[in-house]
Amino acid sequence: MSSIFTKIINGEIPSYTIAEDDHFIALLDAMPLVKGHTLVIPKKEVDLIFDLESDEYKNLWGFAQQVAKKIKKAVPCVRVGVAVVGLEVPHAHIHLIPLNKMEDMNFRNERLKLTDEEYKEIQNSIINS
Amino acid sequence: MSSIFTKIINGEIPSYTIAEDDHFIALLDAMPLVKGHTLVIPKKEVDLIFDLESDEYKNLWGFAQQVAKKIKKAVPCVRVGVAVVGLEVPHAHIHLIPLNKMEDMNFRNERLKLTDEEYKEIQNSIINS
Repeated sequence: MSSIFTKIINGEIPSYTIAEDDHFIALLDAMPLVKGHTLVIPKKEVDLIFDLESDEYKNLWGFAQQVAKKIKKAVPCVRVGVAVVGLEVPHAHIHLIPLNKMEDMNFRNERLKLTDEEYKEIQNSIINS
Repeated sequence: MSSIFTKIINGEIPSYTIAEDDHFIALLDAMPLVKGHTLVIPKKEVDLIFDLESDEYKNLWGFAQQVAKKIKKAVPCVRVGVAVVGLEVPHAHIHLIPLNKMEDMNFRNERLKLTDEEYKEIQNSIINS
């Protein structure tokens, strides 16, 4: 069965895309810890990020670097944090999280509930930053 | 003033090194969340990881991939998690954290206090994995 991310990549599930190329996609997390919380995902469905072939793995991080710079410009934050956990969805993904304090990256925190309008506003501000 | 990591890289502060080349170093975290918690650090003293020049940044992640694979072999865990936070030390560093559950990556958790013998045992098991 396809992972939820593959379904998003295939357009079966809607998402707020930030950037996309042939190999990678960045989109707003549907259960964000903070505003601007973004996922960067290889289109190839691999469980463990470290199992990606070396070049694809490095290019994934390169793609994430470009996205993180845009997030930093668009979202008020001290810095953009990074997390790879992957205990819930077996399709490798990088969390990019605008941080103002350590607690912003606690995955046990309650997730934000944003409206479609709020998502679109964040999406556009990052894309256009 | 040099960062604590630059002091470690220069040998002014002792550490348990896992791997090192001209550009990067991996060493056991002195305040580990779990056994095997490792830091991967560029020798160049840059605050924000995303400010590293693209090739050096990608190679840092490539170096981290090799270290993570060794940790996964040596330390019992479901997967090796990744975190970049950097709110405390202004010298970019990647946390590689052997995970068995989400809570293992909560930076608010009490840190382990390990003996020199325990550190050396973990260090050797990762180096030799």
